[in-house]
Amino acid sequence: MQTLRVELGERAYAIHIGERLLADAGLILPQLDLPKVAIVTNTTVAALYLQQLTGALQARGVDVLSIVLEDGERYKDWATLNRIYDALLERRCDRKTTLIALGGGVVGDIAGFAAATYMRGIPFIQVPTTLLAQVDSSIGGKTGINHPLGKNMIGAFYQPRLVLADTAVLETLPARELSAGMAEVIKHGLIRDMAFFSWLEQNMEKLLACDQDALAHAVRRCCEIKAAVVAADERETGVRALLNFGHTFGHAIESGLGYGNWLHGEAVAAGMVMAADLSRRMGLIAPADVERIVALLKRARLPIAPPDIDSGRMLELMGVDKKAEGGKLRFILLDAIGSASIRADVPDDPLQQALALCGAI
Amino acid sequence: MQTLRVELGERAYAIHIGERLLADAGLILPQLDLPKVAIVTNTTVAALYLQQLTGALQARGVDVLSIVLEDGERYKDWATLNRIYDALLERRCDRKTTLIALGGGVVGDIAGFAAATYMRGIPFIQVPTTLLAQVDSSIGGKTGINHPLGKNMIGAFYQPRLVLADTAVLETLPARELSAGMAEVIKHGLIRDMAFFSWLEQNMEKLLACDQDALAHAVRRCCEIKAAVVAADERETGVRALLNFGHTFGHAIESGLGYGNWLHGEAVAAGMVMAADLSRRMGLIAPADVERIVALLKRARLPIAPPDIDSGRMLELMGVDKKAEGGKLRFILLDAIGSASIRADVPDDPLQQALALCGAI
Repeated sequence: MQTLRVELGERAYAIHIGERLLADAGLILPQLDLPKVAIVTNTTVAALYLQQLTGALQARGVDVLSIVLEDGERYKDWATLNRIYDALLERRCDRKTTLIALGGGVVGDIAGFAAATYMRGIPFIQVPTTLLAQVDSSIGGKTGINHPLGKNMIGAFYQPRLVLADTAVLETLPARELSAGMAEVIKHGLIRDMAFFSWLEQNMEKLLACDQDALAHAVRRCCEIKAAVVAADERETGVRALLNFGHTFGHAIESGLGYGNWLHGEAVAAGMVMAADLSRRMGLIAPADVERIVALLKRARLPIAPPDIDSGRMLELMGVDKKAEGGKLRFILLDAIGSASIRADVPDDPLQQALALCGAI
Repeated sequence: MQTLRVELGERAYAIHIGERLLADAGLILPQLDLPKVAIVTNTTVAALYLQQLTGALQARGVDVLSIVLEDGERYKDWATLNRIYDALLERRCDRKTTLIALGGGVVGDIAGFAAATYMRGIPFIQVPTTLLAQVDSSIGGKTGINHPLGKNMIGAFYQPRLVLADTAVLETLPARELSAGMAEVIKHGLIRDMAFFSWLEQNMEKLLACDQDALAHAVRRCCEIKAAVVAADERETGVRALLNFGHTFGHAIESGLGYGNWLHGEAVAAGMVMAADLSRRMGLIAPADVERIVALLKRARLPIAPPDIDSGRMLELMGVDKKAEGGKLRFILLDAIGSASIRADVPDDPLQQALALCGAI
């Protein structure tokens, strides 16, 4: 097991990474105020791992309430959130009950927001079971739900007390979801670490085959990068925005297609190609860099082109994005593989050309 | 104008208290990230003060969006909260839009929770227009909405950037609401300041007649007490619970009657009598102290006895209260007029006797 710390002062917490951590209740117990937890998960994950986690905790005398949600991004809404509130209230959970998210990004986001807002905040632990959640969404405290007018529009910054990333559970993850998570893995290399990007070029097949050592290395490196960025800028007023590389386009793609048609990581992959293309058109990176990025995404079995969405519609969808400030769009662009920066000076022409990629490939 | 500061480190903020601050846009402007605000208010307050505030801001070049809610505690729910989100999203408000709550406790709580959760948090300013909001609910960062199973069960701690308490607006407050606010004023004296309680005994008629100097003194002293308590314990892990004196019983009364039948302050007044009675039965204060408290509440035209709710039902309603911990009820009791403490050692007999007050007077 490897352990990292996310340095956030009084909100600092540990991330444990390794095989078969799920059933190790000894990691969770020291974090509980009272021996009472509510595990939020979904039907798919519950069938695979709920009993392991519940059994391990109950064996140590913990009172466990399970709240099993439907599986899918379309359930990341107010109605599902309210089901969590109802279950907590019906079981008289108070401020000392710890909420555990057992699942992927959707479960983590909605359970985290429930923890942030139930009785104005209760203790929270993340047990991410997808690659995307392990390398990205479980770290940094972003929680929330979708609104019909925009993804993640309702939410809060709320830090967990602990993140348990069990790499063994990735063996049961569908290949498409493993690939989707790989988009965020590649993103971490692109924005901050050229050597890690090269390592990914050398190890992509091992990762896709769930080689445990390779996975542990990738998860750890992503967590290190994300933890450092989050520690520097918890509430996304500056450098944290770099983590959104590919996401301005990606969110517009997700929203334009309707949530749940493409996986988040798939939309981000296509969004990263658009952002890389825009970086090239701005003269920031070479055509060969774009080709390397496209090649690695392809090997990760990810889409490398956005679907056919009208460029006017894309702009409209990007306009309500949270990263818009004062009406002006900011883009995260690459200066090189391994280095990104925030740009508010993107002229209309290269942007239109990048948007024309939609449906083009 | 008098100014206090709530000392909360990077979340510290000022409270300005005085006559006719509402139209002084110069107090608000320095707090805005961009000249764009969304004012959340209700139909009653909008008719009286929305134009003044809007006009003052527009005259200084601020883009103003108004969101006018229905008036009443029963609208402090998810549906109303969603109306705020919808309006903000439809007008493409981003993270730099400042949300201003213009109204009483309900408006402040729901607007504050909208500010806490819209795009994971946007700047927030409180302009409280009721006595209750000026002395209590606008200070300290508690925000939230009600759930069918409990009051304020969904919420967040979220601090405003500024509180503007304009005492002149209290002249248009209905007498019943002025009295309800006085319950919280009296509470501040009871829990922390005997001299202030005595001052209230000498000045109650002036306050009820909206004497501006008396109001400014009372609002200031309450804000000082509340700000000091909140600064010592922002997230209510200890001393802040003292501010809930009378509220464990009061919330049960509100909930038992159905929200909105009694005003919050009225339920708190009856709850404080129950808590004082329980303190006396525990031998902590003298019968004469209870009589002084009852007499002052009567002069403030507040109920001094709870309605007829079965004691079993009261206990059940108190059981889901947020202040319950690990299943054990804690009570805020008086050691003297001007001094309160948290007690987890209340035996069943005196509690049952205090509950028997329900419907008894």
